[in-house]
Amino acid sequence: MYRTIFFKNKPTIIGRSTVAGPKEGRGAIAKYIDVKLEDDMFGQDTFEKAETKILYTAIKNAIDISKLNEDDIDTIIAGDLLNQIIASTFSVRNFRTGYLGIYNACATFSEALILGATLIDGNYLNNVVCASSSHFSSAERQYRYPLELGSTRPPQSQWTVTGAGASVISSKGNGPKITCATIGRVVDFGISDANNMGAAMAPAACDTLFTHFNETGFCPSDYDLIVTGDLGTLGSRIFKDLIWEKGYDVEKQHVDCGELVYNLAEEEYQGGSGAGCSALVFNSFIVDKLKKGKYKKVLLMATGALLSSVSAQQGDSIPGIAHAVCIEGE
Amino acid sequence: MYRTIFFKNKPTIIGRSTVAGPKEGRGAIAKYIDVKLEDDMFGQDTFEKAETKILYTAIKNAIDISKLNEDDIDTIIAGDLLNQIIASTFSVRNFRTGYLGIYNACATFSEALILGATLIDGNYLNNVVCASSSHFSSAERQYRYPLELGSTRPPQSQWTVTGAGASVISSKGNGPKITCATIGRVVDFGISDANNMGAAMAPAACDTLFTHFNETGFCPSDYDLIVTGDLGTLGSRIFKDLIWEKGYDVEKQHVDCGELVYNLAEEEYQGGSGAGCSALVFNSFIVDKLKKGKYKKVLLMATGALLSSVSAQQGDSIPGIAHAVCIEGE
Repeated sequence: MYRTIFFKNKPTIIGRSTVAGPKEGRGAIAKYIDVKLEDDMFGQDTFEKAETKILYTAIKNAIDISKLNEDDIDTIIAGDLLNQIIASTFSVRNFRTGYLGIYNACATFSEALILGATLIDGNYLNNVVCASSSHFSSAERQYRYPLELGSTRPPQSQWTVTGAGASVISSKGNGPKITCATIGRVVDFGISDANNMGAAMAPAACDTLFTHFNETGFCPSDYDLIVTGDLGTLGSRIFKDLIWEKGYDVEKQHVDCGELVYNLAEEEYQGGSGAGCSALVFNSFIVDKLKKGKYKKVLLMATGALLSSVSAQQGDSIPGIAHAVCIEGE
Repeated sequence: MYRTIFFKNKPTIIGRSTVAGPKEGRGAIAKYIDVKLEDDMFGQDTFEKAETKILYTAIKNAIDISKLNEDDIDTIIAGDLLNQIIASTFSVRNFRTGYLGIYNACATFSEALILGATLIDGNYLNNVVCASSSHFSSAERQYRYPLELGSTRPPQSQWTVTGAGASVISSKGNGPKITCATIGRVVDFGISDANNMGAAMAPAACDTLFTHFNETGFCPSDYDLIVTGDLGTLGSRIFKDLIWEKGYDVEKQHVDCGELVYNLAEEEYQGGSGAGCSALVFNSFIVDKLKKGKYKKVLLMATGALLSSVSAQQGDSIPGIAHAVCIEGE
């Protein structure tokens, strides 16, 4: 069994774009975000349609920023948290390109990068868009309670990011290169609290990082940044403890997109989450720093909690997954 | 834009297995199916857990039949129709391998074959399992009405297949070879009747087949069989009309998994559907005929209706997609 892939031709991120909701647009990484919404409905009449338009806008802008035409794009790889990933499907309906729908909860963006890089690296396709999104209001009512109920949020909860990010990966051009990746596996530590997803995902992040170090020979100091997706503050502490027990100290390199995305404020508790979280932070702040040479080598490890409201209601635990992608500066 | 991929190293289907529900186990392809259930609950207490066990069993048996150990498998690529593809996630939780979750409704199995073949062909991985499932009872209550309501089925409806199929794709070994594939795009003809999915998917099947012929230079007579996933009787007629209008007559080559899977009986109306439909028929009847030399070249084109209950309730139409995979006998 081998879970790490090396890309010889170093697929390149030639363009990327981000769209964020009002709260995210006022957060810590606000100045790196392309489109900041004043209204999270984005002129639509439902949350789901708003999310669809957010994802569409991120994809469209990423293609434009790459100076490509829609006809240059071979395939869009996308996913989101909605049942049957309808935000992705209905966004991509507006394009003439191919479409591969994927779902690994909040690890979806990493999965998209792995598959996109594989298709480009092997010379199967020339240009691929990788994208994912989430929306606080569409996620909250699907996974937890109707917003109108005004439920109290427990302290271990996170805030689903309203936003989307898209990367254009190409066989040509300039930009950060995707050099290798480690595919995650499903890890279940028996957590069943749907408000404590950081704890559910941390063991998967530890498993993937440990496997990545084992299979590549890399160690924490080879990276400027090891970026988890949305473990949040509590989940990040658990993750760092778990990987420390395996013999690796990542305290200096580790940041979490969920911790980065908001200003520290009471109401978001453990930080951001959602399939849009890592896509938003990666395609704004992180790619910017990679392009400017501030970071030379980053490991993006988006993390997903693989529950549904049905599995939760049937008393099942919440398995986690994390996919790691190594991206190097130009 | 280019949607067709050629596989130079011809990834090989070295093993496959199928599990079918009681109705499917009495159908037209029954003798090719490995495990036929007498009870569609499969010893579980919910439909969703039954579907999970069905998919797990198909994956486990496919690995065993390939004479591999679990540790030889690098990654499982799987998807299903349940919200957040929990049948796939909870099946794969029982394995130590990597996991890539995908979703393109009933086109999921074709998508899995494309991604699996890409990962093998480019020498990124050695052995990959591709799998998908569906279950009549879990799908019916999620997409339409509670079974207890006893709703009358309209004549254009189809019957979601209870079953799963899994293929092991490898860089070595003997078996049918995957030689090329055409990635589908989202096509929407404005159909909004969730009971008439054949009509919603037929335009996507036509688009993919037309693109496949255009980009490969193949014509219908190059294939022994052009297999759609679950257009059903009505959808198949629409599909054949649409592709005939584009200049191709596929009457001689075309079969539909949804038409094949049941004996002709009143109650299933237009035939079978579901992500398990094409996976079940392909991994039993079709691979068997490819292995025995009865068919030399088959185009598997599973078709998906990309709706959710939310998109339907919000009045949106049903976009379709179809991915085509060319498989050649040994």
